[in-house]
Amino acid sequence: MTAAPNRNTLWGRAVADELAATGVDAVCVTPGSRSTPLTVALAEHPDVHVFSHLDERASAFFALGRARRTGEVTPLVCTSGTAAANFHPAVMEAAQSRVPMLLLTADRPPELRDSGANQTVDQEKLYGDAVRWYKDLPEPAADDRKLRSLRTDLARGVSTAEGTPAGPVHLNVPFCKPLEPVAVDGDVPDDLPELAAQGREGGRPFVSTTAGHPMPDDRDLQRIASVLDAERGLIVAGPADPPGPDPQAVTALAHATGFPVLADPLSGLRFGSAVRVAPVLGGYDGFLAGGVPEDWPDPEVVVRFGASPTSKPLRKYLAGSGARQLLVDPAGGWREAEFAATDLVVADPSRLCGALSRQVGGGGGVGSALDSDSTAWRERWEAAEAAHWDAVEATADGGRFFEGRVLADVTELAPEPSTVFVSNSMPVRDADRFAAPAAKGLTMLGNRGASGIDGIVSTALGAGSATTDELTLVTGDLAYYHDMNGLLALERCDVGATVVLINNDGGGIFHMLPIEAFDPPFTSQFKTPHDLDFEPTGELYDLSFARVDGDDREGFRELYRESAASDGTDVIEVASDAEASHRVREEIAERTAERLTD
Amino acid sequence: MTAAPNRNTLWGRAVADELAATGVDAVCVTPGSRSTPLTVALAEHPDVHVFSHLDERASAFFALGRARRTGEVTPLVCTSGTAAANFHPAVMEAAQSRVPMLLLTADRPPELRDSGANQTVDQEKLYGDAVRWYKDLPEPAADDRKLRSLRTDLARGVSTAEGTPAGPVHLNVPFCKPLEPVAVDGDVPDDLPELAAQGREGGRPFVSTTAGHPMPDDRDLQRIASVLDAERGLIVAGPADPPGPDPQAVTALAHATGFPVLADPLSGLRFGSAVRVAPVLGGYDGFLAGGVPEDWPDPEVVVRFGASPTSKPLRKYLAGSGARQLLVDPAGGWREAEFAATDLVVADPSRLCGALSRQVGGGGGVGSALDSDSTAWRERWEAAEAAHWDAVEATADGGRFFEGRVLADVTELAPEPSTVFVSNSMPVRDADRFAAPAAKGLTMLGNRGASGIDGIVSTALGAGSATTDELTLVTGDLAYYHDMNGLLALERCDVGATVVLINNDGGGIFHMLPIEAFDPPFTSQFKTPHDLDFEPTGELYDLSFARVDGDDREGFRELYRESAASDGTDVIEVASDAEASHRVREEIAERTAERLTD
Repeated sequence: MTAAPNRNTLWGRAVADELAATGVDAVCVTPGSRSTPLTVALAEHPDVHVFSHLDERASAFFALGRARRTGEVTPLVCTSGTAAANFHPAVMEAAQSRVPMLLLTADRPPELRDSGANQTVDQEKLYGDAVRWYKDLPEPAADDRKLRSLRTDLARGVSTAEGTPAGPVHLNVPFCKPLEPVAVDGDVPDDLPELAAQGREGGRPFVSTTAGHPMPDDRDLQRIASVLDAERGLIVAGPADPPGPDPQAVTALAHATGFPVLADPLSGLRFGSAVRVAPVLGGYDGFLAGGVPEDWPDPEVVVRFGASPTSKPLRKYLAGSGARQLLVDPAGGWREAEFAATDLVVADPSRLCGALSRQVGGGGGVGSALDSDSTAWRERWEAAEAAHWDAVEATADGGRFFEGRVLADVTELAPEPSTVFVSNSMPVRDADRFAAPAAKGLTMLGNRGASGIDGIVSTALGAGSATTDELTLVTGDLAYYHDMNGLLALERCDVGATVVLINNDGGGIFHMLPIEAFDPPFTSQFKTPHDLDFEPTGELYDLSFARVDGDDREGFRELYRESAASDGTDVIEVASDAEASHRVREEIAERTAERLTD
Repeated sequence: MTAAPNRNTLWGRAVADELAATGVDAVCVTPGSRSTPLTVALAEHPDVHVFSHLDERASAFFALGRARRTGEVTPLVCTSGTAAANFHPAVMEAAQSRVPMLLLTADRPPELRDSGANQTVDQEKLYGDAVRWYKDLPEPAADDRKLRSLRTDLARGVSTAEGTPAGPVHLNVPFCKPLEPVAVDGDVPDDLPELAAQGREGGRPFVSTTAGHPMPDDRDLQRIASVLDAERGLIVAGPADPPGPDPQAVTALAHATGFPVLADPLSGLRFGSAVRVAPVLGGYDGFLAGGVPEDWPDPEVVVRFGASPTSKPLRKYLAGSGARQLLVDPAGGWREAEFAATDLVVADPSRLCGALSRQVGGGGGVGSALDSDSTAWRERWEAAEAAHWDAVEATADGGRFFEGRVLADVTELAPEPSTVFVSNSMPVRDADRFAAPAAKGLTMLGNRGASGIDGIVSTALGAGSATTDELTLVTGDLAYYHDMNGLLALERCDVGATVVLINNDGGGIFHMLPIEAFDPPFTSQFKTPHDLDFEPTGELYDLSFARVDGDDREGFRELYRESAASDGTDVIEVASDAEASHRVREEIAERTAERLTD
């Protein structure tokens, strides 16, 4: 590397070098002038790939998607002004769902702020309390202390973003002109200390961080283990904090306690090896929807980790039970909006499950001699699970098609390994209810932090960009429209996907709410049919666009298989009727409820 | 109106009634569940039109555009979660450019915040210091004091948003279930005081506000008038705070002082009657670009109002002059990033111009016997103005076409009355340099607060929705792409426009910056060609799409005339070459400079 021609170039290179040193291999950049020193340095860095986006909102969700898939940060760079505000929706989602994010927003120097200068806004603490750490960096200077502080701040930024809880970190980065790598005589002195100018030898980070993981001490562990010494227990795994819990540790606990695992579709446990070795249930959103039969006993103890479960019936069931409920959270978060938790355990879920599984001995563990109450409890749940999947299957027999089945089919047909991204608001709920647990290599992801319908396309493509998995996105029409701009990443970022677009012309989820009965304004203000023909998005973004009727299940399965087996991107639009679909959903729930009370 | 079935319905109706009472005739709403009580009440209100949008970012910019055109607020409603964060870019622009905005963000009730509840984020003070006022409203209650506070807060919200300086106001509105207008026994007592329940009689606002306008007292006015008693002065009108200054008052001052008016394209003064009665100049961005000839004397005094001028050559010229510079700002803002102002005058520009024009007597006023220095000064500016427009015309003669001429042609051909919205970053600069002052009914608008390229389509359509003017949007390809979602408003909000899309396949403005010389990374990271074929947006959004080559000036003029004369929306894509255009721009500046130094 030649000597930096000016202090801004020096500063930009230090940023790029430190990011690479901490393991960052990609960044998302949107074009702009003020950010030039960062953009140039990152583009020139041999170990950093630049994903170039044009819409900052899409860029941030793309970075979110990558980090959600990998658990590691993909830093974002933007210019000054509204660009940074466009990051806000993704920042919010990252904060809520604990996804690492590092925002580098270029800014004017302090004297131009609040001065009426062009494209100069108040970027200080722009994201409020949604970030784990904010710092306004000093102005670039070829100065020993300032460069050491910069390198430290970059290491700290990455470490904090990936810490516990993971989340967004915002570094505001002011620059004066010249922004380009033009020579400025005397700007960078020859005698600058090498450590400040070049960083650590061998590409090591300026500060290497070692993360600690919270664990209760042995006495507390024994106490918790004794609580789990019960006949009727449940392990509830909500949407996972990336990269998700260790399936082996969780199944070990399930094995030791004999408790069924209720696995959210976003828990990282509903699909994969865990399913083979422990009772992993996924039908609870269906079979709990009608309420449990009166003769079901309450659980005695519930061990919960991850975010609040997607399933409302499950949340209500847990809230209504008198069980002792242990909320396990590595960050000491209180993510329990039913206020049914009795104990908060600040611990890393995987490590805790591992340790507890070794402590829990005498209970009704699967591996031990089972007592009959414990067995009956588990069998009851397994029978309910079976009843639900039978009811789902029964509606398929009649050749009927509904939105929920799309999720069942995609989960079944997705090749291994696959990443399946499910949008809000209906696809993730349909995945919850209709995607059966399976011992296959499938990673299911969704934006379940703030549960927005924004940025879905970009998040999915960002996740896809991080892996060689086959990528499937299941989205509704509103979310597809909301982030159509995100489709530009297909070509610019070289990602391929199968996009299953369930088009019910508006907000199908509103059919599930009481407002359905008030029309007007139901149709015009809630259902909001848009009458958009999405086929031209195929030409616009150079992807193939196919349509299938809502009642042609085999046609859909055939198209999906073909797309998954081929390169490039295909949109498969499924013409659906939200109201009719909702009726099938209700019918399945009724059928399950009937069998449970028989 | 029947009695409200529950407290939420009562609360929503009070909001709708008070908004209507303050004069609000339209709102922008995006679908969502938590905001149901607001949406239902607004949809039912006979005096309020609901513009329904699907993308909150586009919705906010649409509301911004309406308010920019009218000077009056168009409130926004959204559901909880990331929806509110999508408003942020437009909030920032409204704050910077003093456009009234009222944000009503539905929220979960306090107990569900920071609890892990679904779609619940921290919405408190979400927009930080970008809003003029923030309040978290109490939970709905059928209670005398709470309802009176609600009605007061609505009046206050509108008044503050439209105050001095105008800008965004954020009311966070929590709701518990039920959100729909279902009957809840006993929820709304029969004996609720009528004033709280129904508001003021006759649809009057709960609190009527009377705005004050700051003016110096007489002694200060005399002092300022004496400062203006100079031979060489300038009146500089930057981008206007909506609804803009009174042209009569400004021209009266120009008349009285004999000072030329340098009118920013967004000042509200470059087009219209002012041009007929005072020397309104618009060519300064061109003729000051090469620096003024050495024999030009400095101005003695400069009167400035509005935001910082779009023209960088003008800003630099003013900064380099030794003139006494009076910054007139009704909100006491210090919008002068060159730090060349010598005096801040807190006053309403129109009222101040009017008052001063009556005080200034003995100077070189146009109406009085002119002394020769004053005349020479004005003639010098008028000659430079002529030289610029001659140079512009000379490049047109050779049949050459460049981006700047599009703005000249649009301004010339736009039928009266017209609203012409110019995008960042090049169109507004091209309008500044190439749209000649004209005595026609043309309102030129742009988002020059934060100068983003986001939300441009929506802002333009919002402005168009507020008027029967013919609407033209001139945009580059990046801005068109960035807010393609905004095109949905054409049909949903029944707006028509002529969209002139100058497509130079990427960020043409970067050719004006030194980074052009560094390729890579210039092309991949700054120019960012996207290779998008926008023609399918025609089919997607049901608009006609025509293309014209960059060198076919007559072809463009013909298409523009046809579109302006017809209904519906036409996109006229002008295939352009940013680099070649930039060269023509330079050539014109050189030609003008040559003539000035002759």
